[in-house]
Amino acid sequence: MRSGGFVSVSRPALTSIVLILSLYCFHVLALKSQLLTRHGGVTDLNAQDTVINYETWYFDQKIDHFGFLEDGTFKQRYLVNNEHWDQKGGPILFYTGNEGDITWFCNNTGFMWDVAEELGAMLVFAEHRYYGESLPFGQDSYSDAKHLNYLTSEQALADFSVLIRELKRTVLGAQKSPVIAIGGSYGGMLSAWLRMKYPNVVVGALAASAPIWQFPDMVPCGDFYKIVTQDFARSGLNCDVNIRRSWKAIDNITATDDGLQWLSGEFSLCSPLKKTDLDGFKAWLQETWVNLAMVDYPYEANFLQPLPRWPIQVVCKHLGFDPSVVSDYQLLGGISEAARVYYNYTGNCPCLNTSSTATGNLGFIGWYYQACTEMVMPLCTDGVQDMFEPQDWNFQAFSDECHSLFGVRPRPDWADTVYGGLDIASHSNIIFSNGGLDPWSSGGVTRNISDSLVAIVIPDGAHHLDLRYNNEYDPHTVLSARVLEVKYFKLWITQARKLQIPG
Amino acid sequence: MRSGGFVSVSRPALTSIVLILSLYCFHVLALKSQLLTRHGGVTDLNAQDTVINYETWYFDQKIDHFGFLEDGTFKQRYLVNNEHWDQKGGPILFYTGNEGDITWFCNNTGFMWDVAEELGAMLVFAEHRYYGESLPFGQDSYSDAKHLNYLTSEQALADFSVLIRELKRTVLGAQKSPVIAIGGSYGGMLSAWLRMKYPNVVVGALAASAPIWQFPDMVPCGDFYKIVTQDFARSGLNCDVNIRRSWKAIDNITATDDGLQWLSGEFSLCSPLKKTDLDGFKAWLQETWVNLAMVDYPYEANFLQPLPRWPIQVVCKHLGFDPSVVSDYQLLGGISEAARVYYNYTGNCPCLNTSSTATGNLGFIGWYYQACTEMVMPLCTDGVQDMFEPQDWNFQAFSDECHSLFGVRPRPDWADTVYGGLDIASHSNIIFSNGGLDPWSSGGVTRNISDSLVAIVIPDGAHHLDLRYNNEYDPHTVLSARVLEVKYFKLWITQARKLQIPG
Repeated sequence: MRSGGFVSVSRPALTSIVLILSLYCFHVLALKSQLLTRHGGVTDLNAQDTVINYETWYFDQKIDHFGFLEDGTFKQRYLVNNEHWDQKGGPILFYTGNEGDITWFCNNTGFMWDVAEELGAMLVFAEHRYYGESLPFGQDSYSDAKHLNYLTSEQALADFSVLIRELKRTVLGAQKSPVIAIGGSYGGMLSAWLRMKYPNVVVGALAASAPIWQFPDMVPCGDFYKIVTQDFARSGLNCDVNIRRSWKAIDNITATDDGLQWLSGEFSLCSPLKKTDLDGFKAWLQETWVNLAMVDYPYEANFLQPLPRWPIQVVCKHLGFDPSVVSDYQLLGGISEAARVYYNYTGNCPCLNTSSTATGNLGFIGWYYQACTEMVMPLCTDGVQDMFEPQDWNFQAFSDECHSLFGVRPRPDWADTVYGGLDIASHSNIIFSNGGLDPWSSGGVTRNISDSLVAIVIPDGAHHLDLRYNNEYDPHTVLSARVLEVKYFKLWITQARKLQIPG
Repeated sequence: MRSGGFVSVSRPALTSIVLILSLYCFHVLALKSQLLTRHGGVTDLNAQDTVINYETWYFDQKIDHFGFLEDGTFKQRYLVNNEHWDQKGGPILFYTGNEGDITWFCNNTGFMWDVAEELGAMLVFAEHRYYGESLPFGQDSYSDAKHLNYLTSEQALADFSVLIRELKRTVLGAQKSPVIAIGGSYGGMLSAWLRMKYPNVVVGALAASAPIWQFPDMVPCGDFYKIVTQDFARSGLNCDVNIRRSWKAIDNITATDDGLQWLSGEFSLCSPLKKTDLDGFKAWLQETWVNLAMVDYPYEANFLQPLPRWPIQVVCKHLGFDPSVVSDYQLLGGISEAARVYYNYTGNCPCLNTSSTATGNLGFIGWYYQACTEMVMPLCTDGVQDMFEPQDWNFQAFSDECHSLFGVRPRPDWADTVYGGLDIASHSNIIFSNGGLDPWSSGGVTRNISDSLVAIVIPDGAHHLDLRYNNEYDPHTVLSARVLEVKYFKLWITQARKLQIPG
């Protein structure tokens, strides 16, 4: 969290938090929007051609795995497809649901559907507690810190483990099925952690674009925005330089009421800018660039917004000015055109709304609660190695904000303690895949740790491109990555069958 | 829990539970008394010759590691000795405290003191939450299920991990010190689990006499008492046969008031037996034999009771009757003499008290709570392969009893899910040592799982004999075991130094 992004709020009702957060909480929103980007809209163009069928099931899951006073249960939703499953112990590919509705993930993780037949695999997509329909206390789940208390990654991992064991116990033929965890982004972190913490439950994990090292003191906080900047720098002449200059141009122009009015008109904003909106306006723009970096895919896709192929290249066509001569007005005109690539590619958007870049939903509050407790992921900018205004990571401000919002304080060292931080060499059978274009690769594992903790880097890949359906425009690097991933799956399955305990 | 061992109680005050449990809860008491046996009395004879010094420290530990609503802390006690420590990154031997006062463990785990100099090691003994002085809510810690809610092995492991990281962060020279977990019995289970769950925190573990498989559906529930029986069978002619016959003899003789009176006199009981006391009397005797099996050490030692060397051989001298001719009176006379070996070796005990075989203390309730939640360890007898009256394992009765006592119900599958059960092959660097005489070896790992998950069996060893001080009467098998353990420690330390992350 960049300290400047904070606004002082005194325990607003949670229902009003979404708006505040979407304006002021950059990095949290950034991680969130990455997920919403992939899953917040209709399925992607390629996916629309593919008919997928699944059954929807619900499992009575303990609300608290780590204490015995709260003995209640809730219905955890999970989706199953077994049309290609070899019922004589064929593997189970188990998607470890992220902070969102599991049907989005099911519809958008084409890789699993593409490889099911080859592997004779059952597909299971398990929803993460507190998201989608899997609400421990129904509509009260988000009502206060007491009800939110069971929203942790540890509880989610326990849910997945208990569910997998239940499936193996009750589904005829599944008793000896090797289970492979698959997930992307936060879901990828969960896949890796599931293998680390419950190697008895899953034989391996594919952790796609999983920033398991984006925690305090593991990687430099500035790398994330540096990668965003590099994506723009490589996509068009002067593209990053002009975005870097745009913040000052906004300050210059909005110094007068006329300038404010001009800017509102230039961007076709739904609500005219006020002086007090400027931080929010800049945050909205910054997040737009971040989102573009995450979804800079090589083909047209219909996400939160429909986008052209290689969208940053299209954006940068509007930002090729010679920086030594461009005026503030020209520059911001270009910025406005660039933003429209993201928000109005179809031309159907009558005005731009700076209060959101992603659909607000319950999951958004949930993720912010997780960031305010365990998922403390420092991000910062310096304006030199990146194209943004300098903002330090300020833990204290972040902690105070969390306390105001939820009555809890983050524990910045806990993730390192519980999930091993940089010291994960003793684990096994995890693939960490990362896209070279993806800012979240800043916190990813991009080098091999051992023979069985392997990194796959997809230079032309954005955020977990490898988890998407095969597409004719896929670069060969992602095709190779998918082939290698399946090769490891087969190896793990073979290993597991050899090691299997008799009986 | 053997179903017959239960008595119906309707939520008695917790302060009165100790007595009830000590009479009726065999297996829980058995595991507990094993610990008390080792640690409940003064230090053993050998230890008395050794002057040990340690510093006592307290660390502010989170009450709840797995939720953020409860943000309070408590003082966790730990003991430190660094007189032999190589301050340039020498290793730390970290005792993972069991369910008792940590000073007992510190005073009685002579092995660590014996090897400290050779390894240049710092010794740390960390107290388990809810025991000794490490009470999360002070005197209220045991007041009800709400306060007991944070008494779990997962919380204890998190305590250990957080503490170790804090030590490495703050103790000059310890930053890169490899840490080895060491524990016996439940503490040994914790050591193994610490390595499994937090391999980033400890480079290896010595799990001495740790029955990590004494959970439902992992090992036969009857093995424990079978081993007790074998110990008696090998220690004297007809010894087990006569104990097996004694239960019926008790029934026969106590059928009359005269018989009850005779038996009370014969045993010099402090309170004369009543008809309704019979189950408790048998339970007390059964537990006496179990305790003897656990502490059947090759040298005189002063435990809960002072005992001769090879105490079961001494016991069996009183039980050598020809079973085809011995009368019930003769037999029970022998049993009474045998019991006195355990309770009155010094001759200072004016009468025998059947209400306890171990000092009651807070830890006792704590352990019972743990057995009633996670630590569900089925034991049973059949009277054929063992020398006890047949009693099935009855989970439902156990669960109902737990609910009556604590308002919680055990989750019999949880330990298997969270700690991997039989399927632990993917972990590394754990020594499982077990004594062939120790009934808890029934649930121990007694075969090598892999090159780095190794089993050491000490045929002549009782309960974690290897953790005790060297003694001139030690069988060579325990000496070899200790040598091998130190060899593995050195290997892990070398490995860890090679793998160390720079910086």
